[in-house]
Amino acid sequence: MRNAVLVVAAPGVAYGPGMTTKPQLSWGIIGTGWIAGVFAEALAKSRHGRLQAVASRTSERARTFAKKHRIAKAYGTYADLLADPAIDVVYISTPHPSHCADTLSAIKAGKHVLCEKPMGITAAECERMVTAAERKGVVLLEAFMYRVHPQTQKLQELLAKGIIGDLRCIRTAFTFDLSVLPITGANVRIDPALRGGSLYDVGGYCINASRMIAGEEPATIDAAWSIDPATGVDRACAGVLKFPSGVLAHFDVGFHSIPTNFIEVIGAKGRIHVASPWWPEQKRAVITVQMTGKKSKEVVVRNGGWIFTIEADHMADVIAGRTKPLIPAANSIGTARVLDTIWRRMHR
Amino acid sequence: MRNAVLVVAAPGVAYGPGMTTKPQLSWGIIGTGWIAGVFAEALAKSRHGRLQAVASRTSERARTFAKKHRIAKAYGTYADLLADPAIDVVYISTPHPSHCADTLSAIKAGKHVLCEKPMGITAAECERMVTAAERKGVVLLEAFMYRVHPQTQKLQELLAKGIIGDLRCIRTAFTFDLSVLPITGANVRIDPALRGGSLYDVGGYCINASRMIAGEEPATIDAAWSIDPATGVDRACAGVLKFPSGVLAHFDVGFHSIPTNFIEVIGAKGRIHVASPWWPEQKRAVITVQMTGKKSKEVVVRNGGWIFTIEADHMADVIAGRTKPLIPAANSIGTARVLDTIWRRMHR
Repeated sequence: MRNAVLVVAAPGVAYGPGMTTKPQLSWGIIGTGWIAGVFAEALAKSRHGRLQAVASRTSERARTFAKKHRIAKAYGTYADLLADPAIDVVYISTPHPSHCADTLSAIKAGKHVLCEKPMGITAAECERMVTAAERKGVVLLEAFMYRVHPQTQKLQELLAKGIIGDLRCIRTAFTFDLSVLPITGANVRIDPALRGGSLYDVGGYCINASRMIAGEEPATIDAAWSIDPATGVDRACAGVLKFPSGVLAHFDVGFHSIPTNFIEVIGAKGRIHVASPWWPEQKRAVITVQMTGKKSKEVVVRNGGWIFTIEADHMADVIAGRTKPLIPAANSIGTARVLDTIWRRMHR
Repeated sequence: MRNAVLVVAAPGVAYGPGMTTKPQLSWGIIGTGWIAGVFAEALAKSRHGRLQAVASRTSERARTFAKKHRIAKAYGTYADLLADPAIDVVYISTPHPSHCADTLSAIKAGKHVLCEKPMGITAAECERMVTAAERKGVVLLEAFMYRVHPQTQKLQELLAKGIIGDLRCIRTAFTFDLSVLPITGANVRIDPALRGGSLYDVGGYCINASRMIAGEEPATIDAAWSIDPATGVDRACAGVLKFPSGVLAHFDVGFHSIPTNFIEVIGAKGRIHVASPWWPEQKRAVITVQMTGKKSKEVVVRNGGWIFTIEADHMADVIAGRTKPLIPAANSIGTARVLDTIWRRMHR
């Protein structure tokens, strides 16, 4: 047993076949924004993980966060957390443009990394991150938590069965009202220097889902946006993608409107609608399937659970080799390419 | 009373204030395709119109159509119908690229014109048609039947009240399966030379509605499409429009998939969803309004009626001066500009 315990403390290897206990993965959180708090709470319910440390750019912010979430260690620099040998895996939720450097530092320190989306702000950044993780032999995943929820697995299962016939079009949306988020202090979401704006905040969901459903990378990328004059970032963005197979996708995202969320896939013979694709209902997630001329039917995923907890446990499972990643880090390169293409047009 | 009856036979003037009877408007139909049949049936229920004649490019087709729809006169050329002094108004449902010339001929003959959509295939064509009608003093309307239904009036009323706050985004769709239409013989919808394809067939609905809701013309137009290799026309098209106010619109249309139809408008504080915007339910048309954090509410339009009959009666009302056009012909210029912009990119 002693070996197993030691193994847990050493990044890269943990629980494997034949071992009889499920050792806990030790988590560190880098960055103390709103989503870091959501993830910290979710980790508390994780089967395979324990939140052990948090790091911020100031000791004060780290201590405040640690106190609120009952975390043992609070570090005033990211480097101090990365130097802590007790930490196996870090969750990076710093501002978007810092993701690449922070991830590379963590990988260099031998930590597994769950990096908030967008993983990198360009395809080149993502490629560097993926290569570094592969070379070091650590697990790197982009925190697209909706991808690991059973509802998303069910959606992919339905699509794989081909029940709606040849795919024609994918419609997605993710909008909300930024002013209702419990954010205090400076908000990175409205800072153009940090790739603030709705595109980089939630556009990745629609792009990630469209690519997942089409099963390929878009051949053409077009978009329109609305810049908020007060902040200089896009408060809304709508885009249209064409995939080589001929499948089309269009979407809108925004953070100054009523919340709306959906994935809708239309095919030659039917339609699949997911009403809460990004933050699925925990108790009863519903996918609606309608075939031409028929009444719609509900496909229900019961007790699917809380996505962030599932995500933490999925990360543990991947690290332990119990499962393959549901969304490999390399997949993030494609999303980054679309995001960056639109961003550059938006700000040229 | 003699005067009133005479007036009906003379285009341009019909029933006016102070007159005690509602004289019947005499209709002629040019073109005998599927939609012409739908309109002929609708005219039979019109309060203010009677279908008197039909013209096709062959006497045989005209006679077959006349027999089926119990029409007194069948003409083997369009010119013969236009020369008939008993006809007040013509409904033009020839292939898209013929709309302009056929409309100009009808106007020259002093007929009022209800022209199938798209009114012209380019903005320039529409401008010529509008100018000609104005000069001749006849009424010209584009047959955007959904615009005259009470459901659409209610939607505009709700938007005018500003209940959902500043507009952010407009989502629309119109798809169906061409193979289920009862079309016999050659289908103009799949002929590239006749601007066949889903964009010109139903794209106008999404573009017309988006412009109606935004209340202005788009500043940017982007699109993607899927060309059916068997026919050379677009079987699906998705677009994104940006309006000068910052409102965004995106849509998809197609005619090789499950039917889907909706208009959804999202604003800063709420959302309006129309589930059957293009062919509204006759008995109970429902508009759903949802405000942030509240349960959605239904706004119901009862017994709104059959759109094509309403359209015929609206045409009669406009000709008689009883009402102003709900969609003036000049409005069609903007739709044509968007359609043509996308078409030219699609086929360059």
